[in-house]
Amino acid sequence: MTKIPVGILGATGMVGQQYIALLAGHPWFEVRYVAASPRSAGKSYCDAVAGRWQPARAWGAGVGDLIVKDANDPSAAVGNCAFVFSALDMAKDKIRALEDSYAGAGIPLISNASAHRWTPDVPVLIAEVNPQHIDIIPAQQKARGWSKGFIVVKPNCSIQSYTTPVYALIAAGYEVRRMIVSTMQAVSGAGYPGVPSLDMIDNIVPYIGGEEEKSEDEPRKILGMLADGVIQNATLPKISAHCNRVPVVDGHTACVSLEFGEKKPSITEVKRVWSAFSALPQELDLPMAPKRPIIVRDEDNRPQPRKDRDADKAMAVSVGRVRGCKVFDLRFVGLSHNTVRGAAGGGIENAELLKVKGYIS
Amino acid sequence: MTKIPVGILGATGMVGQQYIALLAGHPWFEVRYVAASPRSAGKSYCDAVAGRWQPARAWGAGVGDLIVKDANDPSAAVGNCAFVFSALDMAKDKIRALEDSYAGAGIPLISNASAHRWTPDVPVLIAEVNPQHIDIIPAQQKARGWSKGFIVVKPNCSIQSYTTPVYALIAAGYEVRRMIVSTMQAVSGAGYPGVPSLDMIDNIVPYIGGEEEKSEDEPRKILGMLADGVIQNATLPKISAHCNRVPVVDGHTACVSLEFGEKKPSITEVKRVWSAFSALPQELDLPMAPKRPIIVRDEDNRPQPRKDRDADKAMAVSVGRVRGCKVFDLRFVGLSHNTVRGAAGGGIENAELLKVKGYIS
Amino acid sequence: MTKIPVGILGATGMVGQQYIALLAGHPWFEVRYVAASPRSAGKSYCDAVAGRWQPARAWGAGVGDLIVKDANDPSAAVGNCAFVFSALDMAKDKIRALEDSYAGAGIPLISNASAHRWTPDVPVLIAEVNPQHIDIIPAQQKARGWSKGFIVVKPNCSIQSYTTPVYALIAAGYEVRRMIVSTMQAVSGAGYPGVPSLDMIDNIVPYIGGEEEKSEDEPRKILGMLADGVIQNATLPKISAHCNRVPVVDGHTACVSLEFGEKKPSITEVKRVWSAFSALPQELDLPMAPKRPIIVRDEDNRPQPRKDRDADKAMAVSVGRVRGCKVFDLRFVGLSHNTVRGAAGGGIENAELLKVKGYIS
Amino acid sequence: MTKIPVGILGATGMVGQQYIALLAGHPWFEVRYVAASPRSAGKSYCDAVAGRWQPARAWGAGVGDLIVKDANDPSAAVGNCAFVFSALDMAKDKIRALEDSYAGAGIPLISNASAHRWTPDVPVLIAEVNPQHIDIIPAQQKARGWSKGFIVVKPNCSIQSYTTPVYALIAAGYEVRRMIVSTMQAVSGAGYPGVPSLDMIDNIVPYIGGEEEKSEDEPRKILGMLADGVIQNATLPKISAHCNRVPVVDGHTACVSLEFGEKKPSITEVKRVWSAFSALPQELDLPMAPKRPIIVRDEDNRPQPRKDRDADKAMAVSVGRVRGCKVFDLRFVGLSHNTVRGAAGGGIENAELLKVKGYIS
Repeated sequence: MTKIPVGILGATGMVGQQYIALLAGHPWFEVRYVAASPRSAGKSYCDAVAGRWQPARAWGAGVGDLIVKDANDPSAAVGNCAFVFSALDMAKDKIRALEDSYAGAGIPLISNASAHRWTPDVPVLIAEVNPQHIDIIPAQQKARGWSKGFIVVKPNCSIQSYTTPVYALIAAGYEVRRMIVSTMQAVSGAGYPGVPSLDMIDNIVPYIGGEEEKSEDEPRKILGMLADGVIQNATLPKISAHCNRVPVVDGHTACVSLEFGEKKPSITEVKRVWSAFSALPQELDLPMAPKRPIIVRDEDNRPQPRKDRDADKAMAVSVGRVRGCKVFDLRFVGLSHNTVRGAAGGGIENAELLKVKGYIS
Repeated sequence: MTKIPVGILGATGMVGQQYIALLAGHPWFEVRYVAASPRSAGKSYCDAVAGRWQPARAWGAGVGDLIVKDANDPSAAVGNCAFVFSALDMAKDKIRALEDSYAGAGIPLISNASAHRWTPDVPVLIAEVNPQHIDIIPAQQKARGWSKGFIVVKPNCSIQSYTTPVYALIAAGYEVRRMIVSTMQAVSGAGYPGVPSLDMIDNIVPYIGGEEEKSEDEPRKILGMLADGVIQNATLPKISAHCNRVPVVDGHTACVSLEFGEKKPSITEVKRVWSAFSALPQELDLPMAPKRPIIVRDEDNRPQPRKDRDADKAMAVSVGRVRGCKVFDLRFVGLSHNTVRGAAGGGIENAELLKVKGYIS
Repeated sequence: MTKIPVGILGATGMVGQQYIALLAGHPWFEVRYVAASPRSAGKSYCDAVAGRWQPARAWGAGVGDLIVKDANDPSAAVGNCAFVFSALDMAKDKIRALEDSYAGAGIPLISNASAHRWTPDVPVLIAEVNPQHIDIIPAQQKARGWSKGFIVVKPNCSIQSYTTPVYALIAAGYEVRRMIVSTMQAVSGAGYPGVPSLDMIDNIVPYIGGEEEKSEDEPRKILGMLADGVIQNATLPKISAHCNRVPVVDGHTACVSLEFGEKKPSITEVKRVWSAFSALPQELDLPMAPKRPIIVRDEDNRPQPRKDRDADKAMAVSVGRVRGCKVFDLRFVGLSHNTVRGAAGGGIENAELLKVKGYIS
Repeated sequence: MTKIPVGILGATGMVGQQYIALLAGHPWFEVRYVAASPRSAGKSYCDAVAGRWQPARAWGAGVGDLIVKDANDPSAAVGNCAFVFSALDMAKDKIRALEDSYAGAGIPLISNASAHRWTPDVPVLIAEVNPQHIDIIPAQQKARGWSKGFIVVKPNCSIQSYTTPVYALIAAGYEVRRMIVSTMQAVSGAGYPGVPSLDMIDNIVPYIGGEEEKSEDEPRKILGMLADGVIQNATLPKISAHCNRVPVVDGHTACVSLEFGEKKPSITEVKRVWSAFSALPQELDLPMAPKRPIIVRDEDNRPQPRKDRDADKAMAVSVGRVRGCKVFDLRFVGLSHNTVRGAAGGGIENAELLKVKGYIS
């Protein structure tokens, strides 16, 4: 079987590298095109990332010899890849325009950037939660006059540790009205060089610019409904988020307090729902999909980032400390790998879903 | 002026050491008696802590030469100190009985231990919040047949980062109904050797045994009222706490969401109330009391443990990120030094208050 | 092909767990017997390590259900395993006697403990360096009246980052006369709970009990010659070691200065020798052996523990910063994974060699 | 007594801030002039460092209201300060020219920068080691046609942990021929933002650009002799340095191996020499000088950065683990505070010496 050729925009950055590392040996996809800023353009990929390669894994065969192209030029990608992952790092306006130009050039684009997350006809996709949102693609293409190209984005990494568990409860029939979340986020989320070590030795920082807004708002779009060619955001749950940076390399942890509607599940029922949770990616047996999207830990002191972030290819969400709450109804701790589940791994799973559904070929 | 002679129970442990370090050069008190487990008894204090002294500051003149006594024998303390600080580390039942025996022997005891925190006629004292609770001492003495001895305790270190700010709002006339708190606590709270480094490098632990219960319940006793010779616990606020251990040496951080009653202060008003807050220890100019019990930081990314824990002799609570909340009414981040404000420093300030009020001499 | 049944002594400790994790899916060996202290004896392995399992990988099929035996009783192992890995944690004298009793009971024993490292007829084995030392086994058996049992040990983890590179240079014909080594060692080397986090946040500890002596002396036995039924220690190189503990989870780093004899290789030649180095385990293609025992890094700032410790199944030694020296002749930085290359992984490679050579079956 | 007005060049950077923090309350000097890049010029100092103030201590009275001047314009400083501390952060050539222009304008300049360290008539000053080097100032002034201005620099922070101890032995009559040093250096040495946290969590970096050369060469100038109007560098000791970055906020640790000449002191003698060491700054009782320049620790596991860096106003060098060596003659571990002893504190002590000797007034 011939593999589908893939392009990576922003290939030299940290998320771009993570995409390339995770795609090494992928059964369906193969990296054949890499693009970055004009500064890197013209170099071999190997030279462009010399001394800056961060992933523990190596890139796939042939990637080091690819010549890096200028990401500002979509035409260079045409004919060289069937679709692209976008991990661009520019001003939001510029990213939005550039991503549009790739789609306009007939290239499906799966984006890590936040530029298009609030565009009403662009799905913010967690493959286990809202796979049906991809059905908006034909309307998106029609509205913009795009033939083959389209845009799908993935949400912010901070929400991944609680959105799937909350969705699983909603899907089981329990309304979730309000949530207060406090996150402890890994430094890899800020890229490289990112967070100075003077801020992370014997210290934490109780602030990450823009992160609380994303953590509060994005789940409502993901939990929304398709209607009239747009995604109508859910009105519940209301979310309040405190976002903190802590001295952890990878893995975002969230302490969550939930208020249910009238119908309130027992702790036992919550654990049962989560342990039993399975969705379309599991049914389709997508290569990047975890066997069990939610892993329930019964130990007192889990999940912990270093010990649990790599569960099931770093794609599972680990939850623990499931217990009652004196103010709301339920408390738990959720944990997910921010650069795999929350970034490149999630993007690849999205692409696998789009391929099976015929949007990518 | 002759200084009042003080004894330290559990003098070789981490909190005991902190007491001794902070009392070096104290204008009113002088350490003249040290007691610990039978294992240390008979040694000079210098020998007993050889290679185990943790504080950055040295002990006061003469302390190294004191002979460590057996803490199980209150009679040895009689005549050698006017009162004791208890930093014993034993089973709760044993501590309770031993603390009673010191009080019974006529020695006032100010305790760091949790053993007596729920004894109804024992005040859990934060000198800025409930100084009037010490007026229960005569009733406590009478009920137990103690003449000069009595017991006062300090609360758990985890609550100090939010209890004084919340009290300041209540004192300004704003009812606080419900609170959800998520803490990020320093490793010094677990003593030495305490938390293994394998748990604190590239990791956090979302669990501290018994800490959430204390964080939720103790504020209600502190905010309670004296009536009929006992302290009647307040019914509000209802508190739900998530307690986490993070790789920080000293300084507990709390992310707090508050729900007010009918009357809701503006953000500006909240900051004004906190900046203006002053209480009896400030009025009496107690040596250990901070000039400003609550310091409001306006920067986006403060308070931070390494940068703010030492504010005003490590006795001030620093608050920041004061902002609204999509679920409740107010959010903020509070920070206090757990082994000073939250342990030995708070205990010393309590003793200073008791001295001025004539309970210690 | 039927796998060879293996036993693990000290199976519940950190090194024992590492053995069990690394043996999951091993092509030749299968864990069938686990023994530990009387406290764990009688429990299933699963129960015995509940809440204490440290490795990122899971144990192999069936291990969780094995009933833990008392390690003090060699007779329980007879018939249940073909050989044992010893990761006992007791007083040295007791370990030595107990290891002898296993060998006496006919069970070959490959030990992680230091008890037998200076027994003259017991080889201290690094499979790439001194594989010929296993030929002492018949003499060892004869001297002690053992028929099938024997003892082979592995050296201290701290020496692995420099001993193989130094040996490679010696094997290429360059005498190494003197060495000054300064190590920065990971906390996992101290087991769990091990090093307190209060010592490893914003700190390093320039001392590890007993480690400098091992780091200086053990290489001379490994580089020694078989003669008259004993191993005669090499007289060179003279080594002086500074051993430091640093806040790193896994991976020991060594800064090394070398003085050669008359014949001095160029930097280019040193790199060539190391890159080309291959030994008996590579020739035999042993499952645990790294393809390239020494990986030369050309970047200025490598090797680094988090980025290089896992190279080639965490079994390769990474070297970098190869440069001249104003005092001696050569400087370099060596790095190896202390619990894999330096402990359980090295032990398994030793067992593989013994199996191919017919000592284990 | 009127205080001497002082200027700070590079006042908004990390070293400049440290100067300003340490000068708060200084008995002789008062900060009256602050200069930085054109970007900061025109702002009040308070505004210029808003959100970037790193020291734990506050600045002195009045400093926040000073208007920051353009450091490129020496004429602005004339008449506003008696001398300047230079903590400029620019290209070396530019710093050298700019420092010359301050001296040419009649302003004595004490520099933290490396630009002038190898200028033969500029002293590299550690006040306890080579105070007599300031006697080169008249020759320096004459050669350049400067009347009142001159330049004195301080050495690199990395050498402070071993240069004073080594000098003390030389001063006691023991020739030191060769040294091999391995440092573990704090992140504050790289400024802010400086070292990325992704490099310092669960990691160390065995490389700091340019640091090994400075660590090897600068001591020879400091230990040199004045002759013919220049400083003639010492030929011994030969030094080889390995410089490593470790996750420590402040405090550089050095593991040192020494080879003496014919006359070799015993361990007892070495400790005696160090404990007894006192120099001109102690004799003159300079305000910033430590009472004991070298503190000998007898514990097995000291010095440690977090516990020992602040000894004696963070100006003392702590040494420990004094022991023999199988390769050379003596080994020890030295530790000093890199931003105080090794930067601003050392610079202030130099200025105090220059004041007492009449070069500053």
